[in-house]
Amino acid sequence: MRIGILGTGMVGKAVAARLAGLDHEVLVGTRDPAATLAREEPDRYGNPPFRVWLEQHPDVKLGGFADAAAHGELLVNATAGEASLDALRLAGEANLDGKVLLDVANALDYSRGMPPTPLVSTTDSLGERIQRAFPAARVVKALNTMSALVMVNPRQLADGDHTVFVCGDDAEAKALVTGLLADGFGWRDVIDLGGLSAARGTEMVLPVWRRLWGALQVPMFNFKVVR
Amino acid sequence: MRIGILGTGMVGKAVAARLAGLDHEVLVGTRDPAATLAREEPDRYGNPPFRVWLEQHPDVKLGGFADAAAHGELLVNATAGEASLDALRLAGEANLDGKVLLDVANALDYSRGMPPTPLVSTTDSLGERIQRAFPAARVVKALNTMSALVMVNPRQLADGDHTVFVCGDDAEAKALVTGLLADGFGWRDVIDLGGLSAARGTEMVLPVWRRLWGALQVPMFNFKVVR
Repeated sequence: MRIGILGTGMVGKAVAARLAGLDHEVLVGTRDPAATLAREEPDRYGNPPFRVWLEQHPDVKLGGFADAAAHGELLVNATAGEASLDALRLAGEANLDGKVLLDVANALDYSRGMPPTPLVSTTDSLGERIQRAFPAARVVKALNTMSALVMVNPRQLADGDHTVFVCGDDAEAKALVTGLLADGFGWRDVIDLGGLSAARGTEMVLPVWRRLWGALQVPMFNFKVVR
Repeated sequence: MRIGILGTGMVGKAVAARLAGLDHEVLVGTRDPAATLAREEPDRYGNPPFRVWLEQHPDVKLGGFADAAAHGELLVNATAGEASLDALRLAGEANLDGKVLLDVANALDYSRGMPPTPLVSTTDSLGERIQRAFPAARVVKALNTMSALVMVNPRQLADGDHTVFVCGDDAEAKALVTGLLADGFGWRDVIDLGGLSAARGTEMVLPVWRRLWGALQVPMFNFKVVR
């Protein structure tokens, strides 16, 4: 499948590498490809610059947001949540028309200083804001409740004995994403929470996730819904 | 130990019955004991009225909020979260002085109609509001991320292979609660999330918990932090 990924951060790279390894045709989009390639300094976590990563992943292509959106039959929003609507506007509404848009993002507010404050609400969510702004896209929220490494390689943690949530208003889009998660990434427990408004709940997992990261000292953990 | 429990709802009854069964001296407090005993109709979930429950649990005593707070060496806030500060004021600040106060509550806003909206915030929590209002109490937040039956009988679900979170600013208070959870209720995995501000995170679990309840159709489930 042709997949367009918006965002060149940890999540974008992890998802792109995994999908390319599954023989999908992956194009990663960024605001300014030349600027992304020109960066020489490591990212804030000490990872090598994107150019080095791209050389290590020759199957992945780089382009602008619009290139990625035009390329993909499936699109993945892996931008920083507070910049997602902007990135999607640059991707171009026509390029989103009818596309399944897997939204992995969480929004953070840096205006109060570090650490940033999660931007969440009990009456709205980033996933719903994206769906309202681009009604012809078929938004599915998933994978936003864990670190990037767990997202794409769930079997590396407890042989995959833990849970990923999906939600969205389009059943067919949700089925496509569920298939990718289960058959592609290897998820054993995908729970369908219903319509996209459930993203209010999954986006609110971030604060306890961050406290857990602090308590456990490693990001390689996830929630399992025991029932 | 003498334990005072504020609240006669499902959580108050579950915690009271379990603690009385562990041979603690339990006094449950309510706003108006005569009115609580006079109720003849079932509660909103179809459970028999409190008077019937009390007759079935002769080891548990009933009194006012202040009676329960005066009685307890350990206090449990099992009131509806939006009414907790009021209940604690009626319990009396002097009766809270130096007491460990286990806060199990989540606040819900009924003003927008049903279902109620969880009252949560990324910059504050009910646990912290209680601690600020009663600085001499030693507030520990725990058990607020699951249904009442799971709280007090974790081994009834997957032999207890799931997680409860605790947080609070008083290490000794947290240790007392952790001991009660582990040795009393039978919790196998108690994760200390640090200071009481972590209650912002655990209180925000409610929205995804409610969606899960809808998806799974039963409240007998819980999160396990797999690591």
